[in-house]
Amino acid sequence: MIRKNRLLNFKDVIIYQNDDWFKFSLDSVLLVNFVTIRFSDKKILDLCSGNAPIPMLLTYKTNAKIYGIELQKEIFDLGIKSIKENNMENQIFLINDNIKYIDKLFCCQNFDIVICNPPYFKLEKNSIINDNVIKSIARHELEVDLDSILNAASYSLKTGGTFAMVHRAERLVEIFDCMRKYKIEPKKLQFIYPKETSFCNLIMVEGRMNGKCGLKILPPLVISNDDGSYKEEIRKYYQDN
Amino acid sequence: MIRKNRLLNFKDVIIYQNDDWFKFSLDSVLLVNFVTIRFSDKKILDLCSGNAPIPMLLTYKTNAKIYGIELQKEIFDLGIKSIKENNMENQIFLINDNIKYIDKLFCCQNFDIVICNPPYFKLEKNSIINDNVIKSIARHELEVDLDSILNAASYSLKTGGTFAMVHRAERLVEIFDCMRKYKIEPKKLQFIYPKETSFCNLIMVEGRMNGKCGLKILPPLVISNDDGSYKEEIRKYYQDN
Repeated sequence: MIRKNRLLNFKDVIIYQNDDWFKFSLDSVLLVNFVTIRFSDKKILDLCSGNAPIPMLLTYKTNAKIYGIELQKEIFDLGIKSIKENNMENQIFLINDNIKYIDKLFCCQNFDIVICNPPYFKLEKNSIINDNVIKSIARHELEVDLDSILNAASYSLKTGGTFAMVHRAERLVEIFDCMRKYKIEPKKLQFIYPKETSFCNLIMVEGRMNGKCGLKILPPLVISNDDGSYKEEIRKYYQDN
Repeated sequence: MIRKNRLLNFKDVIIYQNDDWFKFSLDSVLLVNFVTIRFSDKKILDLCSGNAPIPMLLTYKTNAKIYGIELQKEIFDLGIKSIKENNMENQIFLINDNIKYIDKLFCCQNFDIVICNPPYFKLEKNSIINDNVIKSIARHELEVDLDSILNAASYSLKTGGTFAMVHRAERLVEIFDCMRKYKIEPKKLQFIYPKETSFCNLIMVEGRMNGKCGLKILPPLVISNDDGSYKEEIRKYYQDN
């Protein structure tokens, strides 16, 4: 069922979503908070946009033009509907296509920032693929994998441009490998832990196109207290303010 | 000046050190706590042993035979003296040599575990090298670098054997690269933060020789509270018990 929700504490922003498909999550909010945006950045590209939570949240941080690419028509349509409802059509431009055709959509070295909250799960023999195709494509690397994301980012970024992505912790080694393969040097990293005593489940990484070697690892980002309540830093995203 | 110290809360262990050269640090203690030792592990190799804190601490975790290699004669001599003083000559065997001659010292695939607390700092044009040569070699990659460590580890480890190292956070990308170059797959990772709100300064990584892909990131290890006092988990290393 398609619902009309508020985008957390960004109470003016409406987001249309369907519980059966893809719902925006805290990951997107954390990623938008994590990415470094310079005043001079004029064009941002969001890969695997889903129903466009990242482009919509970015409008709170920048006046840059934001382009999003989403493969699945059903989810793309929800994104378009949300962007219209929020009157963001002058800043956000959503495209319904596969990122592997990036060179047909844009000139190379056209963007200051490429951002992405991708499908997290590898396609492996024993992968449990959801019966729901739309949800499966959003969660598993059925159509888009790490290599195709980095390829698209590398094609799109100007030299010195910023790449930012959230992903599963267990894929960190592969992520570094793939970033370097496409000449995007990891520069900033943050680890997300469900609780202080939990293993890390998510990572956020920022890289620079043709950047020099040298990494900073930010303080740990812990989501919940031991009693399950949100940490102060996270609670602010859920408060009306 | 050469001092005779206690090895933290391991109050029965004496360690000889010289304030002007290389002093064992908390890093070594954390690394020994971090490394996975199986009951079946019979031979351990410690690269860049210094005055042998890691071999001596390992005797509290395992009955395996422990071999250490230390290049600098002055520091090696302190290690030998400490091992004797603690009556550990039946378990620890310290060798005064450069790890690049590892193939002259041991047969290949001879060890279950290779452990290392290496020189942390890259040799770069603007590296500030300490006037004190002994200290410089212990801290900077003058004689031993990341590549030579992984080369020695890869030569020494049995298939399925464990590699464990502590290193500077900013070198994480390079560390992963180098481990994979030598077929040691990163499997376990922990980040050390001076305080909860600090950037990470140190990482501990464990890899498996010819291992499969797949990484676990342990809960963050925070050293101090905001007021500068040690966290409970660290304080135990400094308490007499």
